[in-house]
Amino acid sequence: MGKHLLRDLDGLKKELLTSGSLVEEAVNDSIDALVNRRMKLAKEVIEGDYEINQRENKIEEECLKLLALHQPVAGDLRFIITVLKVNNDLERIGDLAVNIAERALYLSNNEPLKAVLKFPRMADGARKMVRKSLDALIGMDTKLARNVLTLDDEIDDLNREMYSTLQVIMRENPETIDRAVHILSVSRYLERIADLSTNIAEDVVFMVEGELIRHKAVDSS
Amino acid sequence: MGKHLLRDLDGLKKELLTSGSLVEEAVNDSIDALVNRRMKLAKEVIEGDYEINQRENKIEEECLKLLALHQPVAGDLRFIITVLKVNNDLERIGDLAVNIAERALYLSNNEPLKAVLKFPRMADGARKMVRKSLDALIGMDTKLARNVLTLDDEIDDLNREMYSTLQVIMRENPETIDRAVHILSVSRYLERIADLSTNIAEDVVFMVEGELIRHKAVDSS
Repeated sequence: MGKHLLRDLDGLKKELLTSGSLVEEAVNDSIDALVNRRMKLAKEVIEGDYEINQRENKIEEECLKLLALHQPVAGDLRFIITVLKVNNDLERIGDLAVNIAERALYLSNNEPLKAVLKFPRMADGARKMVRKSLDALIGMDTKLARNVLTLDDEIDDLNREMYSTLQVIMRENPETIDRAVHILSVSRYLERIADLSTNIAEDVVFMVEGELIRHKAVDSS
Repeated sequence: MGKHLLRDLDGLKKELLTSGSLVEEAVNDSIDALVNRRMKLAKEVIEGDYEINQRENKIEEECLKLLALHQPVAGDLRFIITVLKVNNDLERIGDLAVNIAERALYLSNNEPLKAVLKFPRMADGARKMVRKSLDALIGMDTKLARNVLTLDDEIDDLNREMYSTLQVIMRENPETIDRAVHILSVSRYLERIADLSTNIAEDVVFMVEGELIRHKAVDSS
């Protein structure tokens, strides 16, 4: 590998990790805003998405530049393509944090529903998946990547649990339906964040081992 | 452009269009299954996802091969990268069709709710967006791509309408809550299909004009 390519790939990794940290923080803050009814924080998440989007564009440009400049093959080529895809997934996770923050704004303006209190565990799990999938990418660590996949099952379970709980609440008290539908959406957003992290982990395994582990199942929650 | 690259790019376009047709059909069939309570068709959509997934893998491999073999630059490089991203989006649309088919199975086993009847218009819009965004890609047609973006607003409106309608139905008759939650999910799936088509259209504009039109807004439905 040429010295310049090596340096540029290192730069790319750092950029991606910074995006990852921003996205993780956005997920964290959006749930904090939701659970603790912090409207100002929710607005900050919504405004902060601009930077995440700008960074996505910049990283994509950087990948294209590296491809054109160095014409990498084999492992390097596959790494850059993986970064391109992961970059896209991170931006989508950022959007989901914005979606959660928007629901937080709505819910903060209404009487609290007890069901909200279950989110920190789900959010914590989803955030860990984002972090671990990126660490797996940077460290080419397929063991860690496979570990992410097992975490996804837990989030799926929590999401289903949330659905059952909320359906009962709605049935018992139809006054709660508006809020419950918003809370259901948040649960779904977290589940999608976990799914996107799963995509990243699957891409890492594919990149390193050439083994396709995606498409084994379609989530039905 | 070399003769071989030209031939290979043509092959890639054809592969992608075939995937697009399969995905479009899956969306169509899943809604048909839902509205007309055709359980056998729903199962066919779920089984058919295997082929869509296999094709995604094949196209991704093909893109990597083209990059390594021809080391394209400028426009060709950008085109192949766009195909990689679009390929990924198509596979996600296929997954959403499976999600709809799964809801169709559940709903077919229960008393019908009138709200389902609104889906054909939404599905028709979403399917048109998929088709047009792919046509825009193949024809490098940014006018068509921008047209896709305007269609997205209509789907967003229909999705919001669906939410209001279903909240009223649930409030008036809590017995409907289980089914209504499933129908809400379908509405959301269709809205996500429209979003993914929007992504494709935005990537086409970026590919052709170099202008970034994505990230102008985050959907809040």
